[in-house]
Amino acid sequence: MSTPSPDPQALGPASTGLEVRLAARAGWLSSHTSGLATTHVQGNVVILPRDVADEFLRYCQRNPKPCPVLAVSEPGDHRLPTLAGDLDIRTDVPRYRVWREGVLVDEPGDVRGIWRDDLVSFVLGCSFSFEQALIEDGIRLRHVDEGKNVAMYRTSIATKAAGRFSGPMVVTMRPMKAADAIRATQITSRFPNVHGAPVHIGDPALIGIADLSQPDYGDAVAVLPDELPVFWACGVTPQAALAQARPPFAITHAPGAMLITDLLNHQLSSF
Amino acid sequence: MSTPSPDPQALGPASTGLEVRLAARAGWLSSHTSGLATTHVQGNVVILPRDVADEFLRYCQRNPKPCPVLAVSEPGDHRLPTLAGDLDIRTDVPRYRVWREGVLVDEPGDVRGIWRDDLVSFVLGCSFSFEQALIEDGIRLRHVDEGKNVAMYRTSIATKAAGRFSGPMVVTMRPMKAADAIRATQITSRFPNVHGAPVHIGDPALIGIADLSQPDYGDAVAVLPDELPVFWACGVTPQAALAQARPPFAITHAPGAMLITDLLNHQLSSF
Repeated sequence: MSTPSPDPQALGPASTGLEVRLAARAGWLSSHTSGLATTHVQGNVVILPRDVADEFLRYCQRNPKPCPVLAVSEPGDHRLPTLAGDLDIRTDVPRYRVWREGVLVDEPGDVRGIWRDDLVSFVLGCSFSFEQALIEDGIRLRHVDEGKNVAMYRTSIATKAAGRFSGPMVVTMRPMKAADAIRATQITSRFPNVHGAPVHIGDPALIGIADLSQPDYGDAVAVLPDELPVFWACGVTPQAALAQARPPFAITHAPGAMLITDLLNHQLSSF
Repeated sequence: MSTPSPDPQALGPASTGLEVRLAARAGWLSSHTSGLATTHVQGNVVILPRDVADEFLRYCQRNPKPCPVLAVSEPGDHRLPTLAGDLDIRTDVPRYRVWREGVLVDEPGDVRGIWRDDLVSFVLGCSFSFEQALIEDGIRLRHVDEGKNVAMYRTSIATKAAGRFSGPMVVTMRPMKAADAIRATQITSRFPNVHGAPVHIGDPALIGIADLSQPDYGDAVAVLPDELPVFWACGVTPQAALAQARPPFAITHAPGAMLITDLLNHQLSSF
Protein backbone atom coordinates (compact mmCIF):
# COMPACT_ATOMS: atom_id res chain seq x y z
CA MET A 1 0.00 0.00 0.00
CA SER A 2 1.50 3.31 -1.03
CA THR A 3 1.44 6.33 1.26
CA PRO A 4 -1.04 8.95 0.05
CA SER A 5 0.45 12.14 -1.18
CA PRO A 6 -0.56 15.43 0.46
CA ASP A 7 -1.08 16.70 -3.09
CA PRO A 8 -4.59 15.84 -4.36
CA GLN A 9 -3.23 16.27 -7.89
CA ALA A 10 -1.32 13.06 -7.26
CA LEU A 11 -4.63 11.18 -7.03
CA GLY A 12 -5.92 9.76 -10.28
CA PRO A 13 -7.74 6.95 -12.06
CA ALA A 14 -5.34 4.33 -10.68
CA SER A 15 -5.52 5.47 -7.05
CA THR A 16 -6.68 2.96 -4.47
CA GLY A 17 -9.84 3.47 -2.45
CA LEU A 18 -7.72 3.86 0.67
CA GLU A 19 -5.59 6.58 -0.92
CA VAL A 20 -8.65 8.63 -1.82
CA ARG A 21 -10.26 8.08 1.60
CA LEU A 22 -7.05 9.08 3.42
CA ALA A 23 -6.78 12.22 1.29
CA ALA A 24 -10.38 13.12 2.17
CA ARG A 25 -9.81 12.24 5.83
CA ALA A 26 -6.74 14.48 6.01
CA GLY A 27 -8.56 17.35 4.32
CA TRP A 28 -6.32 17.29 1.23
CA LEU A 29 -9.23 16.31 -1.00
CA SER A 30 -12.41 18.35 -0.65
CA SER A 31 -13.76 18.37 -4.20
CA HIS A 32 -15.34 15.91 -6.62
CA THR A 33 -14.21 12.31 -7.03
CA SER A 34 -14.96 11.88 -10.72
CA GLY A 35 -12.03 10.21 -12.45
CA LEU A 36 -10.45 8.98 -9.20
CA ALA A 37 -9.94 5.28 -8.41
CA THR A 38 -12.02 4.41 -11.45
CA THR A 39 -12.16 0.64 -10.85
CA HIS A 40 -13.66 1.25 -7.39
CA VAL A 41 -17.30 1.58 -6.43
CA GLN A 42 -18.27 5.16 -5.58
CA GLY A 43 -21.32 5.66 -3.38
CA ASN A 44 -23.96 8.26 -2.62
CA VAL A 45 -24.13 8.99 1.11
CA VAL A 46 -27.24 9.70 3.20
CA ILE A 47 -27.01 9.95 7.01
CA LEU A 48 -30.22 10.19 9.05
CA PRO A 49 -31.41 9.94 12.66
CA ARG A 50 -32.62 6.45 13.49
CA ASP A 51 -36.38 7.00 13.28
CA VAL A 52 -36.14 8.66 9.86
CA ALA A 53 -33.53 6.12 8.77
CA ASP A 54 -35.95 3.27 9.35
CA GLU A 55 -38.45 4.89 6.98
CA PHE A 56 -35.71 5.62 4.45
CA LEU A 57 -34.53 1.99 4.45
CA ARG A 58 -38.11 0.85 3.77
CA TYR A 59 -38.27 3.45 0.97
CA CYS A 60 -35.08 2.04 -0.55
CA GLN A 61 -36.33 -1.56 -0.18
CA ARG A 62 -39.44 -0.62 -2.15
CA ASN A 63 -37.54 1.30 -4.82
CA PRO A 64 -34.38 -0.70 -5.42
CA LYS A 65 -33.73 0.62 -8.93
CA PRO A 66 -33.35 4.30 -7.97
CA CYS A 67 -32.20 3.52 -4.40
CA PRO A 68 -29.76 0.57 -4.49
CA VAL A 69 -28.45 0.14 -0.94
CA LEU A 70 -24.83 -0.98 -0.81
CA ALA A 71 -24.55 -0.74 2.99
CA VAL A 72 -26.33 0.54 6.11
CA SER A 73 -24.56 1.20 9.41
CA GLU A 74 -25.68 0.37 12.91
CA PRO A 75 -27.11 3.47 14.67
CA GLY A 76 -24.29 5.71 15.89
CA ASP A 77 -21.61 3.53 14.30
CA HIS A 78 -19.30 5.46 11.97
CA ARG A 79 -17.94 2.27 10.38
CA LEU A 80 -19.14 0.45 7.27
CA PRO A 81 -16.87 -2.60 7.30
CA THR A 82 -18.44 -4.30 4.29
CA LEU A 83 -17.30 -1.37 2.13
CA ALA A 84 -13.81 -0.89 3.61
CA GLY A 85 -12.20 -2.00 6.86
CA ASP A 86 -10.81 1.41 7.78
CA LEU A 87 -13.78 3.46 6.61
CA ASP A 88 -14.97 6.31 8.89
CA ILE A 89 -18.11 7.85 7.40
CA ARG A 90 -17.58 11.02 9.53
CA THR A 91 -14.36 11.96 7.71
CA ASP A 92 -13.95 9.97 4.49
CA VAL A 93 -16.34 11.86 2.22
CA PRO A 94 -14.46 14.78 0.61
CA ARG A 95 -17.27 17.25 1.30
CA TYR A 96 -20.59 16.94 3.15
CA ARG A 97 -23.88 18.78 3.11
CA VAL A 98 -25.76 19.29 6.38
CA TRP A 99 -29.52 19.76 6.25
CA ARG A 100 -31.96 20.91 8.95
CA GLU A 101 -35.69 20.69 8.20
CA GLY A 102 -34.72 20.28 4.53
CA VAL A 103 -32.63 23.46 4.43
CA LEU A 104 -28.93 23.32 3.56
CA VAL A 105 -27.08 24.83 6.52
CA ASP A 106 -23.41 23.86 6.04
CA GLU A 107 -20.89 22.20 3.70
CA PRO A 108 -18.16 20.92 6.03
CA GLY A 109 -15.17 18.73 5.21
CA ASP A 110 -15.91 16.38 8.11
CA VAL A 111 -18.85 15.81 10.46
CA ARG A 112 -17.16 14.57 13.64
CA GLY A 113 -18.28 17.73 15.47
CA ILE A 114 -21.97 17.15 14.75
CA TRP A 115 -21.99 13.35 15.02
CA ARG A 116 -24.81 11.82 17.07
CA ASP A 117 -25.35 8.40 18.63
CA ASP A 118 -28.58 7.87 16.70
CA LEU A 119 -27.23 8.50 13.19
CA VAL A 120 -27.56 5.72 10.61
CA SER A 121 -25.43 5.93 7.45
CA PHE A 122 -26.56 4.69 4.03
CA VAL A 123 -24.33 4.21 1.02
CA LEU A 124 -26.24 3.88 -2.26
CA GLY A 125 -24.79 2.68 -5.56
CA CYS A 126 -24.30 5.11 -8.43
CA SER A 127 -24.35 4.75 -12.21
CA PHE A 128 -20.62 5.39 -12.44
CA SER A 129 -20.09 1.65 -11.83
CA PHE A 130 -22.21 0.54 -14.78
CA GLU A 131 -20.93 3.32 -17.07
CA GLN A 132 -17.46 1.89 -16.57
CA ALA A 133 -18.76 -1.54 -17.68
CA LEU A 134 -20.47 -0.01 -20.74
CA ILE A 135 -17.31 1.85 -21.77
CA GLU A 136 -15.19 -1.29 -21.31
CA ASP A 137 -17.62 -3.09 -23.62
CA GLY A 138 -17.01 -0.49 -26.34
CA ILE A 139 -20.25 1.50 -25.94
CA ARG A 140 -19.73 5.23 -26.43
CA LEU A 141 -21.45 7.53 -23.94
CA ARG A 142 -22.06 10.94 -25.47
CA HIS A 143 -21.96 12.91 -22.23
CA VAL A 144 -18.58 11.36 -21.41
CA ASP A 145 -17.27 12.06 -24.93
CA GLU A 146 -18.45 15.66 -24.64
CA GLY A 147 -17.19 16.15 -21.07
CA LYS A 148 -20.69 16.85 -19.76
CA ASN A 149 -22.71 15.76 -16.75
CA VAL A 150 -25.31 13.12 -17.64
CA ALA A 151 -28.82 14.46 -18.43
CA MET A 152 -31.39 13.81 -15.68
CA TYR A 153 -35.18 14.19 -15.76
CA ARG A 154 -38.05 14.03 -13.29
CA THR A 155 -40.63 11.55 -14.63
CA SER A 156 -44.30 10.75 -14.17
CA ILE A 157 -43.27 7.39 -12.65
CA ALA A 158 -44.16 7.57 -8.95
CA THR A 159 -41.88 5.84 -6.49
CA LYS A 160 -43.49 3.64 -3.83
CA ALA A 161 -43.90 5.67 -0.65
CA ALA A 162 -42.58 4.65 2.77
CA GLY A 163 -43.27 6.78 5.83
CA ARG A 164 -42.62 10.41 4.89
CA PHE A 165 -40.62 9.45 1.77
CA SER A 166 -42.21 9.59 -1.70
CA GLY A 167 -41.93 11.45 -4.99
CA PRO A 168 -41.24 11.00 -8.68
CA MET A 169 -38.55 8.74 -10.09
CA VAL A 170 -35.65 10.71 -11.53
CA VAL A 171 -33.92 9.09 -14.52
CA THR A 172 -30.71 9.53 -16.47
CA MET A 173 -30.79 9.39 -20.29
CA ARG A 174 -28.11 8.11 -22.63
CA PRO A 175 -28.73 8.14 -26.41
CA MET A 176 -27.74 4.90 -28.18
CA LYS A 177 -28.20 3.03 -31.43
CA ALA A 178 -30.56 0.07 -31.07
CA ALA A 179 -27.82 -2.57 -30.96
CA ASP A 180 -26.02 -0.66 -28.20
CA ALA A 181 -29.30 -0.17 -26.32
CA ILE A 182 -29.85 -3.93 -26.36
CA ARG A 183 -26.26 -4.66 -25.30
CA ALA A 184 -26.45 -1.97 -22.60
CA THR A 185 -29.64 -3.60 -21.28
CA GLN A 186 -27.79 -6.91 -20.98
CA ILE A 187 -24.78 -5.35 -19.29
CA THR A 188 -26.67 -3.18 -16.80
CA SER A 189 -29.01 -6.06 -15.90
CA ARG A 190 -25.96 -7.62 -14.28
CA PHE A 191 -25.63 -4.63 -11.93
CA PRO A 192 -28.81 -4.55 -9.82
CA ASN A 193 -26.91 -2.73 -7.04
CA VAL A 194 -26.18 0.26 -9.29
CA HIS A 195 -29.63 0.86 -10.83
CA GLY A 196 -29.78 -2.31 -12.98
CA ALA A 197 -31.56 -2.51 -16.33
CA PRO A 198 -33.13 0.55 -17.99
CA VAL A 199 -36.59 1.64 -16.82
CA HIS A 200 -37.61 2.93 -20.27
CA ILE A 201 -36.45 3.03 -23.90
CA GLY A 202 -37.85 5.34 -26.56
CA ASP A 203 -40.67 7.93 -26.42
CA PRO A 204 -39.91 10.25 -23.48
CA ALA A 205 -43.55 11.43 -23.33
CA LEU A 206 -44.59 7.98 -22.09
CA ILE A 207 -42.77 8.66 -18.81
CA GLY A 208 -43.80 12.29 -18.57
CA ILE A 209 -40.73 13.95 -20.10
CA ALA A 210 -41.89 16.80 -22.35
CA ASP A 211 -38.57 17.92 -23.85
CA LEU A 212 -35.28 16.01 -23.82
CA SER A 213 -33.39 19.24 -24.54
CA GLN A 214 -34.48 20.60 -21.14
CA PRO A 215 -33.13 18.22 -18.47
CA ASP A 216 -34.10 18.92 -14.86
CA TYR A 217 -30.49 18.29 -13.74
CA GLY A 218 -27.22 17.88 -15.62
CA ASP A 219 -26.53 18.74 -19.26
CA ALA A 220 -28.53 18.04 -22.43
CA VAL A 221 -26.97 15.95 -25.19
CA ALA A 222 -28.26 15.39 -28.74
CA VAL A 223 -30.27 12.28 -29.66
CA LEU A 224 -29.45 11.51 -33.31
CA PRO A 225 -32.12 10.29 -35.78
CA ASP A 226 -30.87 6.68 -35.68
CA GLU A 227 -30.71 6.61 -31.89
CA LEU A 228 -33.06 5.75 -29.05
CA PRO A 229 -33.04 7.56 -25.73
CA VAL A 230 -32.37 4.95 -23.02
CA PHE A 231 -33.46 5.79 -19.47
CA TRP A 232 -32.09 4.43 -16.19
CA ALA A 233 -33.30 5.05 -12.63
CA CYS A 234 -31.09 7.70 -11.03
CA GLY A 235 -29.60 8.23 -7.57
CA VAL A 236 -31.04 11.75 -7.52
CA THR A 237 -34.42 10.08 -6.81
CA PRO A 238 -33.68 9.49 -3.10
CA GLN A 239 -32.20 12.99 -2.82
CA ALA A 240 -35.44 14.42 -4.20
CA ALA A 241 -37.45 12.26 -1.78
CA LEU A 242 -35.25 13.49 1.05
CA ALA A 243 -35.74 17.14 0.05
CA GLN A 244 -39.49 16.58 -0.02
CA ALA A 245 -39.56 14.73 3.34
CA ARG A 246 -37.62 17.56 5.07
CA PRO A 247 -36.41 15.50 8.05
CA PRO A 248 -35.25 17.47 11.12
CA PHE A 249 -31.61 16.53 10.45
CA ALA A 250 -29.70 14.92 7.60
CA ILE A 251 -26.18 14.73 6.22
CA THR A 252 -25.39 13.85 2.60
CA HIS A 253 -22.31 13.98 0.40
CA ALA A 254 -21.89 17.22 -1.58
CA PRO A 255 -22.73 16.72 -5.28
CA GLY A 256 -19.92 14.85 -7.02
CA ALA A 257 -17.91 14.37 -3.81
CA MET A 258 -18.68 10.70 -3.37
CA LEU A 259 -17.49 8.07 -0.92
CA ILE A 260 -14.87 5.78 -2.49
CA THR A 261 -15.10 2.19 -1.28
CA ASP A 262 -12.76 -0.80 -1.50
CA LEU A 263 -15.36 -2.68 -3.59
CA LEU A 264 -14.49 -3.04 -7.26
CA ASN A 265 -17.11 -2.22 -9.87
CA HIS A 266 -16.69 -5.73 -11.25
CA GLN A 267 -17.69 -7.21 -7.88
CA LEU A 268 -21.17 -5.67 -8.21
CA SER A 269 -21.90 -7.78 -11.29
CA SER A 270 -24.42 -10.45 -10.38
CA PHE A 271 -23.87 -12.55 -13.47
CA MET B 1 -61.73 -14.77 -11.60
CA SER B 2 -63.24 -18.01 -10.34
CA THR B 3 -64.91 -18.22 -6.95
CA PRO B 4 -62.84 -20.22 -4.50
CA SER B 5 -64.31 -23.50 -3.39
CA PRO B 6 -64.95 -24.09 0.31
CA ASP B 7 -63.20 -27.42 -0.18
CA PRO B 8 -59.41 -27.04 0.17
CA GLN B 9 -59.09 -30.25 -1.85
CA ALA B 10 -60.25 -28.19 -4.82
CA LEU B 11 -57.07 -26.12 -4.55
CA GLY B 12 -54.16 -27.37 -6.61
CA PRO B 13 -51.14 -26.49 -8.73
CA ALA B 14 -53.24 -24.34 -11.08
CA SER B 15 -54.99 -22.33 -8.36
CA THR B 16 -54.59 -18.57 -8.43
CA GLY B 17 -52.91 -16.69 -5.61
CA LEU B 18 -56.25 -15.09 -4.76
CA GLU B 19 -57.97 -18.47 -4.49
CA VAL B 20 -55.39 -19.75 -2.02
CA ARG B 21 -55.45 -16.50 -0.01
CA LEU B 22 -59.24 -16.50 0.16
CA ALA B 23 -59.23 -20.12 1.31
CA ALA B 24 -56.74 -19.24 4.06
CA ARG B 25 -58.70 -16.09 4.95
CA ALA B 26 -61.93 -18.07 5.30
CA GLY B 27 -60.25 -20.74 7.42
CA TRP B 28 -60.74 -23.47 4.82
CA LEU B 29 -57.01 -23.86 4.32
CA SER B 30 -54.91 -24.18 7.46
CA SER B 31 -52.13 -26.50 6.36
CA HIS B 32 -49.10 -26.39 4.07
CA THR B 33 -49.07 -24.67 0.68
CA SER B 34 -46.65 -26.99 -1.11
CA GLY B 35 -48.00 -27.87 -4.54
CA LEU B 36 -50.56 -25.04 -4.57
CA ALA B 37 -50.53 -22.22 -7.16
CA THR B 38 -47.13 -23.46 -8.35
CA THR B 39 -46.44 -20.62 -10.77
CA HIS B 40 -46.85 -18.07 -7.95
CA VAL B 41 -44.23 -16.76 -5.56
CA GLN B 42 -44.62 -18.16 -2.04
CA GLY B 43 -43.10 -16.16 0.80
CA ASN B 44 -41.77 -16.65 4.31
CA VAL B 45 -43.49 -14.31 6.78
CA VAL B 46 -41.93 -12.49 9.75
CA ILE B 47 -43.93 -9.88 11.70
CA LEU B 48 -42.15 -7.80 14.35
CA PRO B 49 -42.72 -4.69 16.50
CA ARG B 50 -41.25 -1.60 14.86
CA ASP B 51 -38.06 -1.25 16.89
CA VAL B 52 -37.08 -4.89 16.34
CA ALA B 53 -38.27 -4.68 12.72
CA ASP B 54 -35.79 -1.91 11.99
CA GLU B 55 -32.93 -4.11 13.17
CA PHE B 56 -34.30 -7.06 11.22
CA LEU B 57 -34.48 -5.04 7.98
CA ARG B 58 -30.84 -4.02 8.43
CA TYR B 59 -30.00 -7.70 9.05
CA CYS B 60 -31.74 -8.66 5.81
CA GLN B 61 -30.01 -5.83 3.89
CA ARG B 62 -26.64 -7.19 5.05
CA ASN B 63 -27.50 -10.80 4.29
CA PRO B 64 -29.49 -10.72 1.05
CA LYS B 65 -28.74 -14.29 0.03
CA PRO B 66 -30.35 -15.99 3.05
CA CYS B 67 -32.79 -13.10 3.70
CA PRO B 68 -34.18 -11.85 0.35
CA VAL B 69 -36.83 -9.25 1.19
CA LEU B 70 -39.75 -9.27 -1.25
CA ALA B 71 -41.79 -6.67 0.68
CA VAL B 72 -41.97 -4.75 3.98
CA SER B 73 -45.15 -3.13 5.28
CA GLU B 74 -45.59 0.24 6.90
CA PRO B 75 -45.88 -0.09 10.72
CA GLY B 76 -49.38 -1.25 11.68
CA ASP B 77 -50.45 -1.64 8.06
CA HIS B 78 -51.82 -5.11 7.30
CA ARG B 79 -51.53 -4.59 3.53
CA LEU B 80 -48.66 -5.47 1.19
CA PRO B 81 -49.94 -4.03 -2.09
CA THR B 82 -46.82 -4.83 -4.12
CA LEU B 83 -47.48 -8.54 -3.53
CA ALA B 84 -51.27 -8.54 -4.04
CA GLY B 85 -53.87 -5.78 -3.99
CA ASP B 86 -56.27 -7.57 -1.65
CA LEU B 87 -53.64 -9.06 0.65
CA ASP B 88 -54.30 -8.92 4.41
CA ILE B 89 -51.28 -10.28 6.27
CA ARG B 90 -53.43 -10.84 9.42
CA THR B 91 -55.58 -13.50 7.74
CA ASP B 92 -54.01 -14.73 4.50
CA VAL B 93 -51.34 -17.05 5.87
CA PRO B 94 -52.90 -20.52 6.39
CA ARG B 95 -51.35 -20.93 9.84
CA TYR B 96 -49.26 -18.62 12.03
CA ARG B 97 -46.85 -19.07 14.90
CA VAL B 98 -46.85 -16.53 17.73
CA TRP B 99 -43.66 -16.07 19.75
CA ARG B 100 -43.06 -14.24 23.04
CA GLU B 101 -39.45 -13.82 24.19
CA GLY B 102 -38.50 -16.51 21.66
CA VAL B 103 -40.99 -19.06 23.03
CA LEU B 104 -43.75 -20.47 20.78
CA VAL B 105 -47.04 -19.64 22.52
CA ASP B 106 -49.75 -20.21 19.87
CA GLU B 107 -50.46 -21.47 16.34
CA PRO B 108 -53.58 -19.55 15.29
CA GLY B 109 -55.30 -19.45 11.90
CA ASP B 110 -55.44 -15.65 11.93
CA VAL B 111 -53.85 -12.88 14.01
CA ARG B 112 -56.47 -10.12 13.90
CA GLY B 113 -57.08 -10.51 17.64
CA ILE B 114 -53.44 -9.84 18.55
CA TRP B 115 -52.67 -7.23 15.87
CA ARG B 116 -50.84 -4.11 17.04
CA ASP B 117 -50.31 -0.67 15.52
CA ASP B 118 -46.53 -1.03 15.65
CA LEU B 119 -46.23 -4.33 13.77
CA VAL B 120 -44.14 -4.42 10.59
CA SER B 121 -44.58 -7.37 8.21
CA PHE B 122 -41.77 -8.87 6.14
CA VAL B 123 -42.20 -11.31 3.27
CA LEU B 124 -38.99 -13.10 2.28
CA GLY B 125 -38.44 -15.11 -0.89
CA CYS B 126 -38.11 -18.89 -0.72
CA SER B 127 -36.24 -21.45 -2.83
CA PHE B 128 -39.49 -22.86 -4.17
CA SER B 129 -39.38 -20.18 -6.88
CA PHE B 130 -35.97 -21.17 -8.20
CA GLU B 131 -36.63 -24.91 -7.85
CA GLN B 132 -39.52 -24.43 -10.25
CA ALA B 133 -37.11 -22.79 -12.73
CA LEU B 134 -34.59 -25.64 -12.32
CA ILE B 135 -37.26 -28.29 -12.89
CA GLU B 136 -38.57 -26.46 -15.97
CA ASP B 137 -35.02 -26.49 -17.32
CA GLY B 138 -34.89 -30.29 -17.00
CA ILE B 139 -32.74 -30.49 -13.86
CA ARG B 140 -33.82 -33.33 -11.56
CA LEU B 141 -33.99 -32.55 -7.86
CA ARG B 142 -33.54 -35.69 -5.80
CA HIS B 143 -35.56 -34.57 -2.78
CA VAL B 144 -38.48 -33.75 -5.09
CA ASP B 145 -38.17 -37.09 -6.91
CA GLU B 146 -38.11 -38.91 -3.55
CA GLY B 147 -40.92 -36.84 -2.01
CA LYS B 148 -38.68 -35.55 0.76
CA ASN B 149 -38.08 -32.15 2.36
CA VAL B 150 -34.82 -30.56 1.15
CA ALA B 151 -31.76 -31.20 3.36
CA MET B 152 -30.66 -28.16 5.40
CA TYR B 153 -27.45 -27.60 7.38
CA ARG B 154 -26.06 -25.03 9.80
CA THR B 155 -22.67 -23.86 8.48
CA SER B 156 -19.54 -22.19 9.79
CA ILE B 157 -20.35 -19.16 7.58
CA ALA B 158 -21.34 -16.32 9.95
CA THR B 159 -24.03 -13.92 8.82
CA LYS B 160 -23.35 -10.21 9.24
CA ALA B 161 -24.93 -9.03 12.48
CA ALA B 162 -27.39 -6.15 12.81
CA GLY B 163 -28.70 -5.07 16.19
CA ARG B 164 -29.64 -8.20 18.12
CA PHE B 165 -29.71 -10.37 14.98
CA SER B 166 -26.79 -12.67 14.10
CA GLY B 167 -25.97 -16.34 13.72
CA PRO B 168 -24.75 -18.96 11.26
CA MET B 169 -25.92 -19.17 7.68
CA VAL B 170 -28.18 -22.15 7.11
CA VAL B 171 -27.94 -23.74 3.64
CA THR B 172 -29.91 -26.19 1.54
CA MET B 173 -28.07 -28.90 -0.40
CA ARG B 174 -29.01 -30.43 -3.74
CA PRO B 175 -26.76 -33.12 -5.29
CA MET B 176 -26.06 -32.59 -9.01
CA LYS B 177 -23.76 -33.75 -11.78
CA ALA B 178 -21.21 -31.06 -12.72
CA ALA B 179 -23.03 -29.94 -15.89
CA ASP B 180 -26.27 -29.50 -13.93
CA ALA B 181 -24.42 -27.68 -11.14
CA ILE B 182 -23.06 -25.21 -13.70
CA ARG B 183 -26.46 -24.76 -15.34
CA ALA B 184 -28.16 -24.42 -11.95
CA THR B 185 -25.65 -21.69 -11.05
CA GLN B 186 -26.62 -19.81 -14.20
CA ILE B 187 -30.35 -20.21 -13.59
CA THR B 188 -30.36 -19.30 -9.89
CA SER B 189 -28.09 -16.30 -10.52
CA ARG B 190 -31.11 -14.80 -12.28
CA PHE B 191 -33.13 -15.02 -9.06
CA PRO B 192 -31.39 -12.78 -6.50
CA ASN B 193 -34.71 -12.32 -4.66
CA VAL B 194 -34.98 -16.03 -3.88
CA HIS B 195 -31.45 -16.78 -2.60
CA GLY B 196 -29.62 -16.33 -5.94
CA ALA B 197 -26.50 -18.29 -6.93
CA PRO B 198 -25.10 -21.09 -4.75
CA VAL B 199 -22.91 -20.13 -1.80
CA HIS B 200 -20.75 -23.27 -2.06
CA ILE B 201 -20.12 -26.28 -4.31
CA GLY B 202 -18.21 -29.40 -3.26
CA ASP B 203 -16.46 -30.28 0.00
CA PRO B 204 -18.97 -29.75 2.83
CA ALA B 205 -16.18 -29.58 5.44
CA LEU B 206 -15.06 -26.25 3.98
CA ILE B 207 -18.27 -24.65 5.26
CA GLY B 208 -18.33 -26.53 8.53
CA ILE B 209 -20.64 -29.41 7.62
CA ALA B 210 -19.26 -32.61 9.16
CA ASP B 211 -21.69 -35.19 7.72
CA LEU B 212 -24.09 -34.69 4.81
CA SER B 213 -26.13 -37.69 5.97
CA GLN B 214 -27.06 -35.79 9.16
CA PRO B 215 -28.88 -32.62 8.09
CA ASP B 216 -29.86 -30.18 10.84
CA TYR B 217 -33.32 -29.74 9.27
CA GLY B 218 -35.20 -31.63 6.55
CA ASP B 219 -34.31 -35.02 5.08
CA ALA B 220 -31.00 -36.47 3.92
CA VAL B 221 -30.59 -37.54 0.29
CA ALA B 222 -27.75 -39.52 -1.28
CA VAL B 223 -24.89 -37.79 -3.11
CA LEU B 224 -23.74 -40.21 -5.86
CA PRO B 225 -20.04 -40.65 -6.76
CA ASP B 226 -20.34 -38.58 -9.96
CA GLU B 227 -22.20 -35.76 -8.21
CA LEU B 228 -21.27 -32.58 -6.36
CA PRO B 229 -23.24 -31.27 -3.41
CA VAL B 230 -24.46 -27.77 -4.32
CA PHE B 231 -25.34 -25.42 -1.45
CA TRP B 232 -27.69 -22.43 -1.47
CA ALA B 233 -28.42 -19.92 1.29
CA CYS B 234 -31.67 -20.91 3.03
CA GLY B 235 -34.63 -19.02 4.46
CA VAL B 236 -34.22 -20.88 7.75
CA THR B 237 -31.27 -18.53 8.40
CA PRO B 238 -33.47 -15.56 9.45
CA GLN B 239 -35.66 -17.91 11.51
CA ALA B 240 -32.57 -19.10 13.37
CA ALA B 241 -31.45 -15.48 13.87
CA LEU B 242 -34.92 -14.67 15.18
CA ALA B 243 -34.87 -17.60 17.60
CA GLN B 244 -31.48 -16.44 18.86
CA ALA B 245 -32.55 -12.76 19.18
CA ARG B 246 -35.64 -13.72 21.23
CA PRO B 247 -37.57 -10.48 20.61
CA PRO B 248 -40.43 -9.72 23.05
CA PHE B 249 -43.04 -10.45 20.37
CA ALA B 250 -43.02 -11.98 16.90
CA ILE B 251 -45.37 -13.69 14.48
CA THR B 252 -44.20 -15.99 11.68
CA HIS B 253 -45.86 -18.40 9.28
CA ALA B 254 -46.08 -21.99 10.51
CA PRO B 255 -43.55 -24.25 8.71
CA GLY B 256 -44.75 -25.00 5.19
CA ALA B 257 -47.84 -22.77 5.50
CA MET B 258 -46.55 -19.94 3.34
CA LEU B 259 -48.08 -16.72 2.05
CA ILE B 260 -49.08 -17.04 -1.62
CA THR B 261 -48.62 -13.81 -3.59
CA ASP B 262 -49.86 -12.62 -6.98
CA LEU B 263 -46.24 -12.40 -8.21
CA LEU B 264 -45.23 -15.08 -10.68
CA ASN B 265 -41.97 -16.95 -10.15
CA HIS B 266 -40.89 -15.86 -13.61
CA GLN B 267 -41.25 -12.21 -12.59
CA LEU B 268 -38.46 -12.63 -10.04
CA SER B 269 -35.94 -13.43 -12.78
CA SER B 270 -33.57 -10.50 -13.17
CA PHE B 271 -32.14 -11.57 -16.51
